[in-house]
Amino acid sequence: MMDQPPRIGLLDAGARDAITDVAGVTVGHATLADGGVQTGVTVIHPHARDPFLHKVPAAAAVINGFGKSVGLVQLDELGQLETPVALTNTFSVPAIAQAQIARCCAANPEVGRAWSTVNPLVLECNDGYLNDIQRMAVTARHYDLACASAGVEVAQGAVGAGRGMSSFQLKGGIGTASRQALLCGVARYTVGALVLANYGVQANLVWGGQPLGRRLAARQPARSEPEKGSIIMVLATDAPLDARQLRRLALRAAAGLARTGSVYGHGSGDIALAFSTAYTLPHLPTGLMPAVTLVHEALLDPLFQAGADSVEQAIVHALWHAQAVTGRDGHRRDALRPLLQAMDK
Amino acid sequence: MMDQPPRIGLLDAGARDAITDVAGVTVGHATLADGGVQTGVTVIHPHARDPFLHKVPAAAAVINGFGKSVGLVQLDELGQLETPVALTNTFSVPAIAQAQIARCCAANPEVGRAWSTVNPLVLECNDGYLNDIQRMAVTARHYDLACASAGVEVAQGAVGAGRGMSSFQLKGGIGTASRQALLCGVARYTVGALVLANYGVQANLVWGGQPLGRRLAARQPARSEPEKGSIIMVLATDAPLDARQLRRLALRAAAGLARTGSVYGHGSGDIALAFSTAYTLPHLPTGLMPAVTLVHEALLDPLFQAGADSVEQAIVHALWHAQAVTGRDGHRRDALRPLLQAMDK
Amino acid sequence: MMDQPPRIGLLDAGARDAITDVAGVTVGHATLADGGVQTGVTVIHPHARDPFLHKVPAAAAVINGFGKSVGLVQLDELGQLETPVALTNTFSVPAIAQAQIARCCAANPEVGRAWSTVNPLVLECNDGYLNDIQRMAVTARHYDLACASAGVEVAQGAVGAGRGMSSFQLKGGIGTASRQALLCGVARYTVGALVLANYGVQANLVWGGQPLGRRLAARQPARSEPEKGSIIMVLATDAPLDARQLRRLALRAAAGLARTGSVYGHGSGDIALAFSTAYTLPHLPTGLMPAVTLVHEALLDPLFQAGADSVEQAIVHALWHAQAVTGRDGHRRDALRPLLQAMDK
Amino acid sequence: MMDQPPRIGLLDAGARDAITDVAGVTVGHATLADGGVQTGVTVIHPHARDPFLHKVPAAAAVINGFGKSVGLVQLDELGQLETPVALTNTFSVPAIAQAQIARCCAANPEVGRAWSTVNPLVLECNDGYLNDIQRMAVTARHYDLACASAGVEVAQGAVGAGRGMSSFQLKGGIGTASRQALLCGVARYTVGALVLANYGVQANLVWGGQPLGRRLAARQPARSEPEKGSIIMVLATDAPLDARQLRRLALRAAAGLARTGSVYGHGSGDIALAFSTAYTLPHLPTGLMPAVTLVHEALLDPLFQAGADSVEQAIVHALWHAQAVTGRDGHRRDALRPLLQAMDK
Repeated sequence: MMDQPPRIGLLDAGARDAITDVAGVTVGHATLADGGVQTGVTVIHPHARDPFLHKVPAAAAVINGFGKSVGLVQLDELGQLETPVALTNTFSVPAIAQAQIARCCAANPEVGRAWSTVNPLVLECNDGYLNDIQRMAVTARHYDLACASAGVEVAQGAVGAGRGMSSFQLKGGIGTASRQALLCGVARYTVGALVLANYGVQANLVWGGQPLGRRLAARQPARSEPEKGSIIMVLATDAPLDARQLRRLALRAAAGLARTGSVYGHGSGDIALAFSTAYTLPHLPTGLMPAVTLVHEALLDPLFQAGADSVEQAIVHALWHAQAVTGRDGHRRDALRPLLQAMDK
Repeated sequence: MMDQPPRIGLLDAGARDAITDVAGVTVGHATLADGGVQTGVTVIHPHARDPFLHKVPAAAAVINGFGKSVGLVQLDELGQLETPVALTNTFSVPAIAQAQIARCCAANPEVGRAWSTVNPLVLECNDGYLNDIQRMAVTARHYDLACASAGVEVAQGAVGAGRGMSSFQLKGGIGTASRQALLCGVARYTVGALVLANYGVQANLVWGGQPLGRRLAARQPARSEPEKGSIIMVLATDAPLDARQLRRLALRAAAGLARTGSVYGHGSGDIALAFSTAYTLPHLPTGLMPAVTLVHEALLDPLFQAGADSVEQAIVHALWHAQAVTGRDGHRRDALRPLLQAMDK
Repeated sequence: MMDQPPRIGLLDAGARDAITDVAGVTVGHATLADGGVQTGVTVIHPHARDPFLHKVPAAAAVINGFGKSVGLVQLDELGQLETPVALTNTFSVPAIAQAQIARCCAANPEVGRAWSTVNPLVLECNDGYLNDIQRMAVTARHYDLACASAGVEVAQGAVGAGRGMSSFQLKGGIGTASRQALLCGVARYTVGALVLANYGVQANLVWGGQPLGRRLAARQPARSEPEKGSIIMVLATDAPLDARQLRRLALRAAAGLARTGSVYGHGSGDIALAFSTAYTLPHLPTGLMPAVTLVHEALLDPLFQAGADSVEQAIVHALWHAQAVTGRDGHRRDALRPLLQAMDK
Repeated sequence: MMDQPPRIGLLDAGARDAITDVAGVTVGHATLADGGVQTGVTVIHPHARDPFLHKVPAAAAVINGFGKSVGLVQLDELGQLETPVALTNTFSVPAIAQAQIARCCAANPEVGRAWSTVNPLVLECNDGYLNDIQRMAVTARHYDLACASAGVEVAQGAVGAGRGMSSFQLKGGIGTASRQALLCGVARYTVGALVLANYGVQANLVWGGQPLGRRLAARQPARSEPEKGSIIMVLATDAPLDARQLRRLALRAAAGLARTGSVYGHGSGDIALAFSTAYTLPHLPTGLMPAVTLVHEALLDPLFQAGADSVEQAIVHALWHAQAVTGRDGHRRDALRPLLQAMDK
């Protein structure tokens, strides 16, 4: 159990086993780690251009709606993502939403004037165990830093929005992975996942198919805590799907999540979002609408498998890479890896 | 057409013909009116106690989801309202959401710590024609002012969140109304509506059943503008309904709205929210859950009629009470009433 | 009020002012009219080919789900219509669904074997006031008759599925209409509507904007009856829309319906379905997926207006063309037109 | 792996480990097994009284809507179950829906006349591999037989609606289980599940946490078949929940399903339905509405765990009890148990 994280499923991973294996996608973090402030922002860019001018098809699946995400109402109506996807802690959602508005207006001065307004898209988990969430320490500057640092190499674990997150009463945070889906033996597409893992009851943890939580409990029972977590699961693909199909893909995150020992607890905001980079949609109706040839519905299964597997793998990566963090009031979350090593002895 | 606004439907209004006819409900405004800043905040309190500790059943109907409202995901999952309902302009949603979080934490210091987080509920329209929305002039202080000013007398028209709103290319804003519903000849309940009216193509305006828009167009055609508006419609009732029934009630706002000449334009975020004051739900599971006797489903029709009628009446009131406003870049919206008087001559 | 039905809205109608103005769409009826049996079947073909092999994009909007329609779960998931749209009375839904399955299997012997099963699509209203619905008199033969009789000329009123339907306590039934939508001054599309009208409280009837129900009530109050009706509203268009956009279009039927005096009563199954004929989707993944250039979202408003207007016009036509019918137990529904003539005198 | 099926989770089962551990719930089957006809009907009664007169709160979660179930539109609107829950093959849905209508009319002669119509509730899977589904061999008589045979002892495996079903390319069918949920250490409720299992790709089968599918594939690769299955998962509980809470509970079936190796394949109609027996709702508004004290939302987690665990256990039971069946065209599905025994050697 020690040297490497378990490998989920039978499909091939992409070159980086990361969401950035979907060409064009980049990820950036800003991390705040100072005493009782253990939090941050993570940003996912669907492509290198202005997403307001070049929207991408997208959809969300709300698996358990105990969450404060922003932007899902319009996403559901229009099926379009028009900002980067931003992740942060629950109480910093307003600051990041405001930053997204400000950045969009700076780039497009007619937004909210001659043009319609922009729909910020911010997803969140509550990192209040380690982070003094009431301080609302995250600001627009951190959003800018996260955007500026975006690239194809994705730091994982206790970084960015994942800095203060807990999972299975251990240190959680950011994880990413990817899988290749082969359709009909000919068309090869990539599905990438990035998760913000902040959920889970320790005794229920399943680790690459193994009931690790029970073994941990047998060694040293964790203090029972009610599920107050949440998990955000973002899926990207280069397959040409429309918003309806992307909603179907997003829902498959629920399968990957369940395999790790979650039953989507009452207090856990479990939300999945999927977008495609295969085509873009112009903001103005004077722009040229693309001629899109979608994947035939009956060929979606490999993409569904890739979605579920990459989400489970991304969760595994989040726990694997997370290092122990001590935060507000001396609260501490241990890293999983040392526990695994101890069990191997 | 001149002396009084048209009266919608056959049901009796409450004493004030306002949402505050539902006992316990209060409304407050904060208005910003200074040159290019023409905007504000409106707050609806479901009752006098802390809504986080004493949640009320609530539900929303998203008629057209081109909107940036905050809080609807959790509302849909849990069927509970746990903050006042706040209305403001699109780009001030983050500021008001943050204010709601801050006020809830101040009142309940364990929110986001030992307790779960709070779900802010902010609904919005884009007042960018009259208001320099990019300035984001609304702050937490205005939220506090609106809360502090709340009472049963409801100012209407170009006040609070309605200050900068346009409707049918005229001045829109805040309107309110109420209707009494008699069930089975015995049980009498009140349905109250408050709208933030910022929608409509002038030629389509129907005024108390009359095709006023066509007559206005015949006198002086308005410059054609695409629908970029939105309308928020909040319904309150003292009838004991659960969240599923309240969603049904909320949807009837779509009927009242349609009668005024709307087809729920693409760019208009048309969202209705309904809550009941008949019982409250304790935040902590140690609190006592109420024993609730709901209205029998087959008796809902008078409430549905009251919902649709009070929404249409509230829209009429919004236009009737709105005074002309000149805002950013000299943009001006005329009041409807002088036009009606001119037509009567 | 006498010679012609009122004309709804400002858009041009198509050549027939019928759903069959959308090229390729045909409609057929089978009518049963014998004493207590006053019912039937109406069928709408999206095109002349096998709809199972050549599916069309489609979506439904459930405005009030007190209804027993069949096929909406899969329609919602896949966004595809794969049978003709069939309308009938509530208790004959199973017979027609079975007929649709049988006809599809006859044409495609591998359905339910090597191929997946077929999704019947049957929408319904309760004609139990005039028709002895418990007799379940409609059979597969009537479905075949309706299909065989399909053409571009659409009989309206007390025919087909509309034979036994009541509306506003008058004779209701089948109505159809169409409107032309001009997008950006260049692209012209048609939206056609066909309704099965079986809803409405007489006092609330609005007839081309006029409060006809109140006038009727003033002359001779109708016995008050609770809303037990329903209305089915089917929209067809040649505009290239996907299922998400078609769901948006379908919802605009709610606006047309509201203008006639409905608040979507509790007991009324108010369901709208929209499909596009602009492209088809092959059943087998070996088939070629079309390259589709959708209408830009910001250009949908003329289509929304056409949808709402054509629904209201189709309702007007249903009432206008419906002749008086006497059915089970001597129950009778009067036609509206003689009442209008009497009022004109 | 041989003597007993694996036991899922840590919660206690009820006395029978069956859905009938929820007091009042009974289950009946009618089985057709004759050459190419291998199919049937299964019926779940929520209680012993007429469910039309004494409706129970209920809700569905459509996990993947590639399915032809009947009754979900009205269930979603009203949150009420008013017939027994019936399960059968896809093409027999109309026959069983018609039988439900007929039986309800026989018991309540005013249904569809002075009273509103009844909403049949029929869920289905496609048993076309073993069963000649195009024959539509199931009739109203089989529905009656299933109802008449209902009791608390539940036959499992290749019986009733499960007769012709396949799962993981093995013999599937009916399985049931139950779990006890202890809330706050005081209130004890039962959640029972009954599944109709007809889904799954063999290589993906997970059996009590073990990757059985991979082991089976290593011994003898199954012919790869696309997912054309489906699974119906019915949950019953005696906990006082309303329809919104029951929908949340129903969705947890997705977690139990995922743990067995499903990613909710495109062609699999994966639908969960949950009902509560804690109170009933009168058909007529003259009936007395119950005063209901619901479970506090924050206490739902043990019920969610019980829901997921009982669904997984019920799937295990379906495979464990299913015996090999040979059906149409010599198609055969092996039983899992002999394979397990062979592997143990």
